[in-house]
Amino acid sequence: MGVDAVDAVVFDVFGTMTDWRPSVTDALAGVGGAAGLRADWAAVADAWRLRYGVTVGKVANGQLPWQPLDDLHRLMLDEVLTEHGLNALGEAERDSLVRAWHHLRPWPDAAPGLELLHNTPVVTATLSNGGVGLLARLTKQAGLRFDCVLSAELARSYKPDPRVYLLAAELLEVEPRRLLMVACHPNDLEAAAKAGLRTAYIPRPLEWGPDAAPVDPPAGVDLVAEDVVDLARVLAGPGR
Amino acid sequence: MGVDAVDAVVFDVFGTMTDWRPSVTDALAGVGGAAGLRADWAAVADAWRLRYGVTVGKVANGQLPWQPLDDLHRLMLDEVLTEHGLNALGEAERDSLVRAWHHLRPWPDAAPGLELLHNTPVVTATLSNGGVGLLARLTKQAGLRFDCVLSAELARSYKPDPRVYLLAAELLEVEPRRLLMVACHPNDLEAAAKAGLRTAYIPRPLEWGPDAAPVDPPAGVDLVAEDVVDLARVLAGPGR
Repeated sequence: MGVDAVDAVVFDVFGTMTDWRPSVTDALAGVGGAAGLRADWAAVADAWRLRYGVTVGKVANGQLPWQPLDDLHRLMLDEVLTEHGLNALGEAERDSLVRAWHHLRPWPDAAPGLELLHNTPVVTATLSNGGVGLLARLTKQAGLRFDCVLSAELARSYKPDPRVYLLAAELLEVEPRRLLMVACHPNDLEAAAKAGLRTAYIPRPLEWGPDAAPVDPPAGVDLVAEDVVDLARVLAGPGR
Repeated sequence: MGVDAVDAVVFDVFGTMTDWRPSVTDALAGVGGAAGLRADWAAVADAWRLRYGVTVGKVANGQLPWQPLDDLHRLMLDEVLTEHGLNALGEAERDSLVRAWHHLRPWPDAAPGLELLHNTPVVTATLSNGGVGLLARLTKQAGLRFDCVLSAELARSYKPDPRVYLLAAELLEVEPRRLLMVACHPNDLEAAAKAGLRTAYIPRPLEWGPDAAPVDPPAGVDLVAEDVVDLARVLAGPGR
């Protein structure tokens, strides 16, 4: 598949473009340490993130009403802090931790890969469960040059709700089959494919830390790339 | 007013960031000339654009149902071509002319001004009556680096409907009084101010060609800048 097979490429952000684990672990360690608390902060970060799929899934399938991701992050954080005996953290500290998801470090290939794609005719955009404001600030600070910021917020739902993927195609004015979804999470790509999009898998073996089990590419994915630079090369390459 | 008085800056695009008149005139002359037609193409472009404010205003105030800007441009074009005796132009030619609004030349200060603002903490976004897809392609091709693409389409209305300005503040998660609207059109700024935004006026004396009457800044505007580079310097300047 080459760049002439698609008109636009949309990217997952948490995990695919950014390395949330050390960013969130550092925030927890900083805020928790300043409050005199001790914990395995990476385990707390993992526990927080593990609740994420289930919680946004409930919004995506209609079990929970839509609410901003910051509010969902706060609900999940409260539960995780209770589980880990960290209830000494106050309101301001919890709010500050929720904001840690607004300032995530990019994977090293993300910015150069986007710059390569910027010089092709395809339009690039985020397609994340983060809100528009979060994504605008995160991508600016991380130096991630997207042509457009799209969020599940615009569909007032969350991925993997098919409406999120279809709204991206509608807003970008491209046919779903000419829109490529890029992610490191098989469930995101499977949902995008069901909605009629093309899909590209990028492995992020370090997303859950150095000891995590490897993730297989989902069956039926249109393209597997090593990282965003490799994706840009494949899309722009001579084989297109 | 300095950069610390605002959290985000949103920009009008047609006229304020892009010089639509020669772009659209050239498209008309190209398509019309190829069809063997002769006309004062700049006058046709002006007539087309003159209908714009009235037409989008009817959507903004609820007289007309929302529809994409391409469809409104097409309706207005059909009327203007009839008025100018240019009905020989066919469907494909008319569609191609509507697409001329997707590829407008930027004013020379627009890209460098946005690059200066990119290096400040404020978030920049479009806030245009153009659709999301149009804006993503236009800004990419014109080299206009915005942190976010926002469109009246997301409110399913058009400026000067106050809901457009308020939705921009909501999506960017900023208070309206900390959101600066930049435009060369007084009615856009007056509507933004009524919605509670701060406003900056940039004159574009050549928008309607070299013989147009000068436009006065609207009363009560918070800031007047020479162009986008000047705006960035004022916002980032020592007087902030």
